[in-house]
This record gives sequence, structure tokens and C-alpha cells, in this order.
Amino acid sequence: MFDLRLLIGAIALSSSFAAFADTPLPTTAPAPANNPTTPEKVALGKMLYHDPRLSSTGTVACASCHNTMLGGEDNRPNSMGVHGQTGGRSAPTVWNAAFNAVQFWDGRAASLEEQAAGPVTNPIEMGMKSWDDVVSRLKTIPGYPQAFEKAFGDKNAISKDNATKAIAAYERTLITPNSAYDQYVGGNKSALTAQQTRGMEKAQQMGCTGCHSGPAFNGAGVFQKFPTFSNGALEAQYHFIKDLGREDVTKKEADKHMWKVPTLRNIALTAPYFHNGAVKDLTTAVKIMAKLQVGIDISDADTADIVAFLNSLTGEFPAQTMPVLPGTPGTSFNYN
Amino acid sequence: MFDLRLLIGAIALSSSFAAFADTPLPTTAPAPANNPTTPEKVALGKMLYHDPRLSSTGTVACASCHNTMLGGEDNRPNSMGVHGQTGGRSAPTVWNAAFNAVQFWDGRAASLEEQAAGPVTNPIEMGMKSWDDVVSRLKTIPGYPQAFEKAFGDKNAISKDNATKAIAAYERTLITPNSAYDQYVGGNKSALTAQQTRGMEKAQQMGCTGCHSGPAFNGAGVFQKFPTFSNGALEAQYHFIKDLGREDVTKKEADKHMWKVPTLRNIALTAPYFHNGAVKDLTTAVKIMAKLQVGIDISDADTADIVAFLNSLTGEFPAQTMPVLPGTPGTSFNYN
Repeated sequence: MFDLRLLIGAIALSSSFAAFADTPLPTTAPAPANNPTTPEKVALGKMLYHDPRLSSTGTVACASCHNTMLGGEDNRPNSMGVHGQTGGRSAPTVWNAAFNAVQFWDGRAASLEEQAAGPVTNPIEMGMKSWDDVVSRLKTIPGYPQAFEKAFGDKNAISKDNATKAIAAYERTLITPNSAYDQYVGGNKSALTAQQTRGMEKAQQMGCTGCHSGPAFNGAGVFQKFPTFSNGALEAQYHFIKDLGREDVTKKEADKHMWKVPTLRNIALTAPYFHNGAVKDLTTAVKIMAKLQVGIDISDADTADIVAFLNSLTGEFPAQTMPVLPGTPGTSFNYN
Repeated sequence: MFDLRLLIGAIALSSSFAAFADTPLPTTAPAPANNPTTPEKVALGKMLYHDPRLSSTGTVACASCHNTMLGGEDNRPNSMGVHGQTGGRSAPTVWNAAFNAVQFWDGRAASLEEQAAGPVTNPIEMGMKSWDDVVSRLKTIPGYPQAFEKAFGDKNAISKDNATKAIAAYERTLITPNSAYDQYVGGNKSALTAQQTRGMEKAQQMGCTGCHSGPAFNGAGVFQKFPTFSNGALEAQYHFIKDLGREDVTKKEADKHMWKVPTLRNIALTAPYFHNGAVKDLTTAVKIMAKLQVGIDISDADTADIVAFLNSLTGEFPAQTMPVLPGTPGTSFNYN
């Protein structure tokens, strides 16, 4: 197992330290070879992403918990799926998810395509019995067969595979460029305030870059342990280690409390924080990260500087048109 | 009490019959003198209408049940509010609601402004304890104070009154012009198919225009009784009279089973049908209306013609941009 504490120690002892990314967030996301991004696929994906008929109740769309009108999630500790059910983890933001090497908190999906398939049939999320049922519904909604044909080039193109490809293609367009930080690394040194620059330097010195590296501040795709340092008082309050993290996926002891490194992009807009959404505000989250990941008690002043820096990672949200979802003339589905 | 049966009898006995509106749906809606429609108010209203933070859980927006990406509602028999709760009535469409003389199935709101206030604090809909709580939330979301000031011209403009005014102003822009029927009455006689024209004439002959008059096919604003004719078999199946309708509002026996006449605009997109959403498909709904309102058993062929005509009332849905909702940097609300 990769031992984060060794790296942190090395960084702390070093006279120099790793800097955050020196390149702005890319404005386009790479697509897999078998799912090139096309306008037709993106248009279809946007429809599917916002269509509550992909849930058993007809009330929950992808966008319900990963809200594209907000910071890409729902600002709840745990999302609310069909019939008001809640799970144990907090919805990650969809904005810039295209730059994650893996998806879900525990990284159990290797791609946006794979991720998109999951919540639809999760009984406490969108609650559909099966993707066959989803495909059946889509086939009976006039407009979808045509939209799938446009996107994929052949008739009868409605399938789980194509639906998730279209959703992923749309998600690859959900990028928030031009944050103050991006302007700063793009050459405009006055784009960050003095406090934000101090906060950036402190975060670098503390070793936050050990995990939150790269233009999306989400690392190189390897998993990281959280918490690294144990702390009884914080655990009693926030219950971080109740959830085994990646161990639940791999069943390997070495993966206990290992998590995908979340992006710091737009972090100011994605409260509450951590995998279980237990921490309501960013100031507390920064103090907890310092304590549990790098073993440092940071001052209020340093915390305020780092929070100011994190606010510089809020990007520009692109203007989007609302999809006009095709109707089911004269009838509706049997929702539960 | 106005006796619908007398009118129907008069129409049935008459050699002529009332026609549906001979003017297209207006493309703008009248606004009350104290709430003129302005672009700033509409922009704010669109934000509020799509903001789930107007609910106790942070999961239910106006748009959740009155979906502007669909036919203006949720295609469920009864909507699903916070914590998966459902009520007894079906969500009316928001499209063209600006042309209703009164709002809600029982007409208990005299304006869109008054209507907009209701669901927010309804415990089974959006579940906020009070409008004071809503106003408090809005005041702490950076961006809303500015948007309210822009819309209403003064600082500290966030109030229940102004929030509902803005929502109503936005709703007055939700108009679907240029249906096949509108093209037809606009002079293009080939805009309706032969079957649709037959259906229109049959519906007129049957006296449907007695209630569904005017360009929005929703009458002159008086209430109408439903059902007019009692029918034990249909009642056993659909339970229409369990709900007392307007009597629940006025406590007057004369208002028992009196309802606002719903628009027929976009009716093909608003299944399931009736105040309790008990009827899944439009074909059955037309047969039931004929039986219970004008006492006629209509043939399958006539029903199909009328359904074809009703499909000609599906309008064009205007392109809309998605609002970018202002965030709460570094924190979130205490949702339940």
C-alpha cells in the first residue's frame, strides 16, 4: 500500500515543496476512443441527464442530485432518492467530473459511462428495476428513438450502452473554466488576492499538493487514505471511518478507508464536505484535513487564507439551454 | 348555483352549437397592475422557480412537480413532495397557467402570485416551516439580494411578496404558441388533419365548448361541476367524488364537486388526467368526460377523432436558458 504519511513527511522535511498545477483547467475533456463527443450525443445526453422518467417514481433525474444549475450537486450531506430515501455518501459534483480518473467516492467506476449506469438502478437512488425497463420506457417515448438514431447513426439505437455513452458525452461538456486561479496561472498575477496567494502557498507548504495535484486538483488517479492520522475526538463527532471506502469494493484490507481524491474545483459550492457530508462548512473542513491528513493544527488565520484560496477555484458556469424533453402523448408511465 | 346540465341541454337541443375559440393563444399574458412583467423580474423568477432550496429538504423546486422541460407537470397521478410524500390531487401544468382566471384545481388562489406562495410552505409539498424561513435563506445566498434589487429597484427587496411576484412574472412567460390549432384559426386551414377537424366539430357538437371556451380552452373563469352526471361504475373505479373540490375552500354545499376548468392546451402531454390523476390515458379521459359531463356514450371512432383534435392543441415550447443559481460559498443549509 502506498503510504501517504511517508510522502507527507518527505514534503514537510524538504526545503522546497510541490506547487499546485501551473496550467489552467482544460476547456475540453478527453473522450474514450469508443465514445467520441459529438453535438448530437451531447444533446441526447443532456435530455437523458435531466429526464426524471429514468427513475421509478418519475421524480428523480441525474440532475436532481447532481444539479447543473447549482454546483453540480445538491448541497445535502446525503442525497435523496426515490421515496425520500437517503444513502451514506454525499453526491460528488458533476462539474469537471470528466477530469476524474475514476468515478464515485470509492472509484468503483472506471469511466463516466460506467458511472452513469449505476444510480439509475440503485434502489435508493433512481430505483429502476433494470436497465431493460429503462430501455423499454425510452423506446415508447416518441422523440427518443430519433434522438438516439441521430446520435449513434443507426435505427434501434436505444440501449443501456448508448444511453450511458450519451450521458457521459454530455458530462464531458460540464467544465467550469476561467476561475481566478486559472487566470492567475494563465499569467494574470493580480487575479488572486494577496490572501489567496498566501493561502495557496500555505496549502502547498502543508503538502496538500501531495494528493490534490493536477489542473483539476484531484491527483493522478491513485486512491488515498482518509483519515491518515487517527483522532478520537474528530471521529466521535464526524464518524469518518464507519465507511470502509474502497474496501467495500475490492474486499481487500489494504483498501480500507481509501478514497478517490475529490477535485477542489468549485469546492466552495459543494458543501457539506467529506464522503459522508458530515462537515457543514469549508473552514471546518480545512482544519480537519490539516489535522487528519498532514497532522497539523493550523491557525485560524492560515485557515482563512486557505479558504480564500479555495474560493479562487470557483469557475465560470457555461450558459446552457434547457432540454425540451419529448412527451408521451395521451399517456404516462406507471410510476411507483 | 350555475347548473351545467341546463346549459348542456340547451346546447344539445339547439340546431347550432358554440365553436371553440377563433383566435390563437396570445403570445403574451396580461400582468396585474401591481406586478408588471420585466426582464429582471422574469430572470429572478426563473431562478426561484428552479431553486430546490425553497424546500425544507433542498430537493423540491417548483419545477420538480411543474416541470418546464416536460409538459409543465410531472405526469404522475399525484406529485411527490419532500420525503416522498404525496397528496390527493394531480399537479396542473404551469404552461399557459397565466391564462387561468383562478389557480389550483379548486381555484383557491386568485392569481399566480397567490398560487406561488402555497406549495412552498405546504408540509407535503416543499415543506418550509414559514415564508420567513424562506426569506431568511434567500437573504443569506449571495446573489439573491442583488437579483431582487435589480428586479424591484430597492435594497432589502427580498420578501414573500416580491418572491411570489417574480415567480408569477416568470410563469407569465411560459406560453406555448403556434399549435396546429393556432395555425388553423390563424388562417391555415390545412394545419388540422381531416380527423382533427372532425374531432373539433364533434367536441363542439357535444357541448365541450360550454366549459372549455376561450383561446386557452379553460372557460371564462367560473367554476364547473364535475361529475355532472353520476355513474356508480365509473365512480367505483376512479373515485372522482371523494374529493369535494371547491367546497373544501368555501365550506358551501353549493361548491361541492365544483372545479376550475382546466386548460386543454397541451393536454396530450399532461397525462394522467382529472383532479385526482386517476385516468391514465387521454382516450379513456375523453370517454369519461362525454359520459359524466354531457351524458353521452361516444363511439371509439368519435373518441379517436376528438383525441386527434386534442393533440392539435400541443404548442411550441420556447427555448429557455437554464438559470445559474447563486451558491452559498463554503456552507450549506440545514436540510431535513
